Amino acid sequence: MLKSENHFLEIVSKAFPNTHKHMLVGRGDDCAVLACPAKLCLSSDLFLEDIHFRLKYFSPEDVGYKALAVNLSDLAAHGARPLGFNLNLIWPEYLDSNFCQRMLHGMADLARQFDIGLTGGDLSFGSNLGLAITIWGQSPERILLRGKCRPGDVIFLVGDIGLARCGLMILEHEPELSEKFPLTTSRHLHPLPLVLEGEILAGIESVKGLMDVSDGLMSDLPRFLAQDTGIEIDPDFPVHPEMQEYSQSKNHDPVIFSLTGGEDYALLGGCPSEQWPMVKSRIPSAWKLGTVIPEKGIFLSRKKLQTKGFDHFEKN
Amino acid sequence: MLKSENHFLEIVSKAFPNTHKHMLVGRGDDCAVLACPAKLCLSSDLFLEDIHFRLKYFSPEDVGYKALAVNLSDLAAHGARPLGFNLNLIWPEYLDSNFCQRMLHGMADLARQFDIGLTGGDLSFGSNLGLAITIWGQSPERILLRGKCRPGDVIFLVGDIGLARCGLMILEHEPELSEKFPLTTSRHLHPLPLVLEGEILAGIESVKGLMDVSDGLMSDLPRFLAQDTGIEIDPDFPVHPEMQEYSQSKNHDPVIFSLTGGEDYALLGGCPSEQWPMVKSRIPSAWKLGTVIPEKGIFLSRKKLQTKGFDHFEKN
Repeated sequence: MLKSENHFLEIVSKAFPNTHKHMLVGRGDDCAVLACPAKLCLSSDLFLEDIHFRLKYFSPEDVGYKALAVNLSDLAAHGARPLGFNLNLIWPEYLDSNFCQRMLHGMADLARQFDIGLTGGDLSFGSNLGLAITIWGQSPERILLRGKCRPGDVIFLVGDIGLARCGLMILEHEPELSEKFPLTTSRHLHPLPLVLEGEILAGIESVKGLMDVSDGLMSDLPRFLAQDTGIEIDPDFPVHPEMQEYSQSKNHDPVIFSLTGGEDYALLGGCPSEQWPMVKSRIPSAWKLGTVIPEKGIFLSRKKLQTKGFDHFEKN
Repeated sequence: MLKSENHFLEIVSKAFPNTHKHMLVGRGDDCAVLACPAKLCLSSDLFLEDIHFRLKYFSPEDVGYKALAVNLSDLAAHGARPLGFNLNLIWPEYLDSNFCQRMLHGMADLARQFDIGLTGGDLSFGSNLGLAITIWGQSPERILLRGKCRPGDVIFLVGDIGLARCGLMILEHEPELSEKFPLTTSRHLHPLPLVLEGEILAGIESVKGLMDVSDGLMSDLPRFLAQDTGIEIDPDFPVHPEMQEYSQSKNHDPVIFSLTGGEDYALLGGCPSEQWPMVKSRIPSAWKLGTVIPEKGIFLSRKKLQTKGFDHFEKN
């Protein structure tokens, strides 16, 4: 087990260098002093055992990876360049220092990939494992907001949707199917933060808005669209073969299932329809989800959908 | 109880305005965009039920106040000007929305006092109440580090020490004494973040270093002093009457008891002895703790002390 705060700090020091081009004063003092861009993006996300992840099927590395990945995705949604993060760690007595090393290793691998530094944090015992991360980075010059798209505009996505939810259901209820649906479980355990894609999109003048899809499109689309508008989903909505097969086996409509998914961490954006080919040429993995219409709601083949995404917090 | 994330956000909106001179984009988007100083101070602290506080004797307002106060103290220790903070909140099912309102009210009162904004956060259910705050602010031009004082320098404190520990012991073990020792319990429940004092000290060229005392002086002094130095504590160490009385009733040495206290959130600093009167004139509440000596250790009447402060994390 972890013997003391100093023992923990030793493990942290091995995983994360205490130097970074944006750290004027590193960790170990009361607070870090950071060379900071004039426009700062700041975002926080909790990642809690048995709420956001289960140790039954998350490896220590997965926990460290995903806790940081979901925070990176929030910056990606603003087209921001991540620079550093603080980690508040709640540590349960039943986990040992080996778990801690492996968890921080998974986190450090991802941090290295985006060249971001660990700029501070805190540690305490607690009843369950919990990670509260606050990430910071440089905002793009142009700030991308929601609610700016108008009827006729193209709504597009970068990244896939529904797979992560599918993976969660398999890991929770039918883990024996994990090998048959490897992409779905990977999307749940290892969401890809689309940081570079976000930065490129923020640099394209005609992209009117951007956000990340974390609660499922049925919940997030209304947040993205202006109050008096809706969307007609394209008929050629792409369904991944794994999703197709899983949905069929459960008698779900794969499109509806995808739209109600959660934890996709895909980027949702919009642009005038005449600009869409240019956007697509800049981000080839972007795909058209649908077109903004002047009627509130989410429509598929002109039929309004009633399902909604999920609220981690809401009681059913 | 809290019905949904939206219900919580309504309560937050009532407690904290979503505008602030440093918020370019407020809460409610994926991340806030902030007008940021070139030198940013960033610090995080956890505040967890049954680890850092107990609901048995913390009112909801106390919880909200202290969670933010301990973070403010970290910035004060750098002489930084606090500007905003993010709140990651872990909410247990057994607390209701009235508790939440009162807790955020206590926090908002303190935030208003220092003119800082709530710039983001996250919310999740969890088994116990937990607050993970990350605070940010403007670093002073001159960055104050530890380990810079030399033999002969004066070590001084702003704020009292030991009272908060005394208050904790009363609240935990003899709550019936609370009325007899009102200052001690108040120091535990409502530590005063010495933000203004920190800013003034950072502006005085001859102040060589600054930190906040949170783990007790016996632990924090060695962190503040250079490796090869120690301190001779002044013989006229001031002991507060409440501390005097409590210590006597327990057969404790009040000076030793004060030095081993925790959660004082006093400011510890150092300066050349000839500058000490000037420092004292700028911060009248500052008091001389002792003098740096060329021998490692904490000495009282030339006797080396062996006791140490506490490590929230360490197992006894």
